[in-house]
Amino acid sequence: MSDTIGKKMYALAGRMFPICRSITGDGFRKSLKILCEEVPEIKTYEVPSGTTVFDWTVPKEWNIRGGGIYRLNDEKVIDFNDSNLHIVGYSLPINEIVSREELLEHIYTQPNQPDFIPYVTSFYKARWGFCMSDNQKKSLSDDNYKVIIDSDFKEGSLTYGELIIPGESKDEILITSYLCHPSMANNELSGPVVLVELMKYVKTLRNRRYTYRFVINPETIGSLTYISRNLETLRKNVKAGFVLSCVGDDRTYSYIESKYADTLSDRVIQNVLKFHYPGYKRYSFLKRGSDERQYNSAGVNLPVCGFCRSKYEEYPEYHTSADNMKLISPQGLQGAYDVMKKVIDTLENNYCFKMTCMGEPQLGKRGLYPTVSQKGTYSSVKAMTNFIAYADGTHDLIDISNIINVPSDELFPFVEVLLKYELITR
Amino acid sequence: MSDTIGKKMYALAGRMFPICRSITGDGFRKSLKILCEEVPEIKTYEVPSGTTVFDWTVPKEWNIRGGGIYRLNDEKVIDFNDSNLHIVGYSLPINEIVSREELLEHIYTQPNQPDFIPYVTSFYKARWGFCMSDNQKKSLSDDNYKVIIDSDFKEGSLTYGELIIPGESKDEILITSYLCHPSMANNELSGPVVLVELMKYVKTLRNRRYTYRFVINPETIGSLTYISRNLETLRKNVKAGFVLSCVGDDRTYSYIESKYADTLSDRVIQNVLKFHYPGYKRYSFLKRGSDERQYNSAGVNLPVCGFCRSKYEEYPEYHTSADNMKLISPQGLQGAYDVMKKVIDTLENNYCFKMTCMGEPQLGKRGLYPTVSQKGTYSSVKAMTNFIAYADGTHDLIDISNIINVPSDELFPFVEVLLKYELITR
Amino acid sequence: MSDTIGKKMYALAGRMFPICRSITGDGFRKSLKILCEEVPEIKTYEVPSGTTVFDWTVPKEWNIRGGGIYRLNDEKVIDFNDSNLHIVGYSLPINEIVSREELLEHIYTQPNQPDFIPYVTSFYKARWGFCMSDNQKKSLSDDNYKVIIDSDFKEGSLTYGELIIPGESKDEILITSYLCHPSMANNELSGPVVLVELMKYVKTLRNRRYTYRFVINPETIGSLTYISRNLETLRKNVKAGFVLSCVGDDRTYSYIESKYADTLSDRVIQNVLKFHYPGYKRYSFLKRGSDERQYNSAGVNLPVCGFCRSKYEEYPEYHTSADNMKLISPQGLQGAYDVMKKVIDTLENNYCFKMTCMGEPQLGKRGLYPTVSQKGTYSSVKAMTNFIAYADGTHDLIDISNIINVPSDELFPFVEVLLKYELITR
Repeated sequence: MSDTIGKKMYALAGRMFPICRSITGDGFRKSLKILCEEVPEIKTYEVPSGTTVFDWTVPKEWNIRGGGIYRLNDEKVIDFNDSNLHIVGYSLPINEIVSREELLEHIYTQPNQPDFIPYVTSFYKARWGFCMSDNQKKSLSDDNYKVIIDSDFKEGSLTYGELIIPGESKDEILITSYLCHPSMANNELSGPVVLVELMKYVKTLRNRRYTYRFVINPETIGSLTYISRNLETLRKNVKAGFVLSCVGDDRTYSYIESKYADTLSDRVIQNVLKFHYPGYKRYSFLKRGSDERQYNSAGVNLPVCGFCRSKYEEYPEYHTSADNMKLISPQGLQGAYDVMKKVIDTLENNYCFKMTCMGEPQLGKRGLYPTVSQKGTYSSVKAMTNFIAYADGTHDLIDISNIINVPSDELFPFVEVLLKYELITR
Repeated sequence: MSDTIGKKMYALAGRMFPICRSITGDGFRKSLKILCEEVPEIKTYEVPSGTTVFDWTVPKEWNIRGGGIYRLNDEKVIDFNDSNLHIVGYSLPINEIVSREELLEHIYTQPNQPDFIPYVTSFYKARWGFCMSDNQKKSLSDDNYKVIIDSDFKEGSLTYGELIIPGESKDEILITSYLCHPSMANNELSGPVVLVELMKYVKTLRNRRYTYRFVINPETIGSLTYISRNLETLRKNVKAGFVLSCVGDDRTYSYIESKYADTLSDRVIQNVLKFHYPGYKRYSFLKRGSDERQYNSAGVNLPVCGFCRSKYEEYPEYHTSADNMKLISPQGLQGAYDVMKKVIDTLENNYCFKMTCMGEPQLGKRGLYPTVSQKGTYSSVKAMTNFIAYADGTHDLIDISNIINVPSDELFPFVEVLLKYELITR
Repeated sequence: MSDTIGKKMYALAGRMFPICRSITGDGFRKSLKILCEEVPEIKTYEVPSGTTVFDWTVPKEWNIRGGGIYRLNDEKVIDFNDSNLHIVGYSLPINEIVSREELLEHIYTQPNQPDFIPYVTSFYKARWGFCMSDNQKKSLSDDNYKVIIDSDFKEGSLTYGELIIPGESKDEILITSYLCHPSMANNELSGPVVLVELMKYVKTLRNRRYTYRFVINPETIGSLTYISRNLETLRKNVKAGFVLSCVGDDRTYSYIESKYADTLSDRVIQNVLKFHYPGYKRYSFLKRGSDERQYNSAGVNLPVCGFCRSKYEEYPEYHTSADNMKLISPQGLQGAYDVMKKVIDTLENNYCFKMTCMGEPQLGKRGLYPTVSQKGTYSSVKAMTNFIAYADGTHDLIDISNIINVPSDELFPFVEVLLKYELITR
């Protein structure tokens, strides 16, 4: 397939990359506004700090302007302007001279990846801290350092975006991603940029069957907030849902099962991946890690699974400074977009079709079957006759695709011609 | 087992072999009449040309008297009298001199089997044609040839035979084969001759439980016709059904699953084959090709599967002149007959038996259990005690056979003795 | 684990070893009385000879005082006082001089284990007989021998013991063993001594959920008798049951499935064994051999499976004089006791827990979750968050243990803390 859309997505991610996002604050808002430039219909919501969200509370809004560690002669050790990963997310403000011993207690590194700056946060406990490469940490030899974090906390709000594109049915497909990570590319700018292009694709669908609900929020507290404000509607309408995360690299495709791996979401994405990307990786729900945690939680139980290329937690660059624009590519983003497009197309066509005639129809008189009967002449029509045999109203298109071992999208033309001849109903 | 019946079947197939059959016409009638000599109770039905049969129409009746290709000096190239496969089934009549170029457009060969004449038909599109070996085709070098096909089409009828042998129950076992192929032996004279002997066997059964419905028709249009005239009865009564096809060679045994492989037909034939012919081949419904297509079609959904020795489409001689009387044998026919006989016996005995006593019965006082207890003395009675344990009214004999891993027919004597002592009911 | 209890069980088995037990008579009573010394609450029942028990009849009571084979000069060949296995169980009394030929017809040996005396009985057919090693039999060369069996049959009774320990619920766990074998250690003194210690353990359980029903009877006729007198209660109340047999050696652990392997008994013991003793052996119900036969019989259908270390019929010493006190050990008995203790603990905790909050709870604020988020920091809480995700009221603790692959007893602390914070209900 072409990577035209992939290039657009890559450029958009590049534009958003430098912004320092967190679960609240101006970085998130600025990033969401860029997405709204792409799809102006996205609605933005603000939920005040202190709002009770199930067992949680929306935290204070955190903003950061700069900071770093400096030698007493003002020589820079690390600085926020070089990488916004250097400051622990939700750090308290500080401006002090501290001893090396005290400083070391506030420094986080990834010792098994000594060249990378790790991504560390402390959303729910007040502390300050810095992140740096383990190698750099080893070079700290001064007795005292100046440490500055120019951050503040205020009674503000948590921000999220939502786009609902109505279809013929109130039944909904939920597609969601999150936007709370600072400068990392695969996790997480890949998810939002693919989400935006899927919004555009869904808008182009004629006779759209499903209503599509796109949501973009900060991870965990954001999805909890979103669910708590929409639970009854989600429960009533959502038939399938997908969390997009880490969908920009060129390695594999991955799917994380819903809690019992038995939902329409699981069925459709398994069907698409097994035919088109047979080397894909399938992860149990025990390996979940993103917002599918909340959607599948014990009280919520929505049919949501996860979709990644290289799955979060599994690729070496995950949650470090190495997850940068070089890790993702136009082709990687395009591939993920193409999978989700096939998922949407399959869902739109996934009816329990039923033949209107008894016995096999006489395909020959409609030019759909060889008129000379000789052994070996039927293989060309096997897929269609198999579809016809199983179109008995008891199994949907995904089931039939699996049974007859033909990709769903190769069945779409059969559906079209059989509908034309009024040989099936749906 | 003896092959006495196999020899009778082989002789009957040999008598019918020379007749040129098609889906309608005198060849079919003449062949069916020979079967009626064996079992006079078979009823013959005629369905007029033009009758609507679901999505189909009964075609005009086609009869052929002769024909061939000749050099202009009347020297024979091929002639219907040498092999009735030489004329494409349902060919239009012709009597002309045609150029080699035109002739070649009407000649069918099997290039990957250059010595065999293929079997070709054109039932639903008017054309004329000849079949010959690919080698012979290559030797055609004259500029012009005389081509003669002495056939005609008329408003006639489609013929089929039916025998219903009533049992204690209205529940039915359907056994069917077809009789529309010209001079080929395995496909298809083997099916009809086994069918006839099974009719004779069922007639001998005392206290017959099931009603047996035997049907013999032209393939596809014939089974469609039969189903369309009997659909409600078939739906109400048929509990299991089998299409016999290619049951005369000595190679393997094959079974073609019903659409979802979950019917009593599947269960009984799997059970018989796995214990008695463990090397048998099991084919998915996706490999169907005979009248099980119609019985399992989306609107019809009857519990019918297929039974073959070497399966149609899978053996090299299929649908060619090499499918002759040398391909089938008395032993081959006898083997298929024996399988179907076991199938019938198992169905007749397949009750959900239920023990009448609580706890294990005291088999010792009835002479059915060792009276000295020492380790190693129980293996002889293990099959019976296992049958007794599972005879709890929840599983039928086939299930129990599968669970305790003892062939169904080895359970029949236990049933008999336990019924005698009134230790089980059914 | 400690083997303190193992040592007590071993000593108790040693005390009972010399007694000659049978399915009725004073040996059984004397042995049961010793068990009652350990747990005085055990109730003893006597069921008169001649009582109809389903398809069976309680036999006459058999007692034996001595006997043997002697040369005519009174030199001992074998004597009951050396091994009570020498006399066939339920032998008729005799005091005669018989020819070598006649004697040989009454001698039982185990030719494939020529040094062992086999254990042989003839409960339901009147005969007399002796057991000896096959090697000793070969040395019999005199023409005549004196044979003495000082036994008698009388209208007496069959004895069994029962202890019911009530819990909060009327739902019952049945644990049973049997006590009818003469001097053999693994089969069967191991079962009764483990049973007695389990009674003591259950008495210590605070807030006992289940009612526990312990039964000790002669095998087969005893369990039939017990079931016939308690069938309705057992059917109404028993949720899981275990037959303990051969639970004293040091080799493996074994479990015999219930009839369809689908009961709570199967689920709990599979769960315990697979995590704690992954090399355990699982036997199909087709390999049953003890009182699970009666509990699972067609009319009774109780959810009972078997538990052994080396399974009866499978270990070489089974039912011979080699099944002596050297075959069992304190550690062997302790291991079986520990399995059954885990089974009881798991059953007591096996609720369908349900989270009270929507979404994941905020574990961090309760000190149950890391407050710094960095990759690699979550593995320590993975088991708890997985438990929480599946605690949705649809699956019990055993199911969740299997799904998340964490032993049931490692989930107990999570249950405790989540109950404390009112985050789950049961």
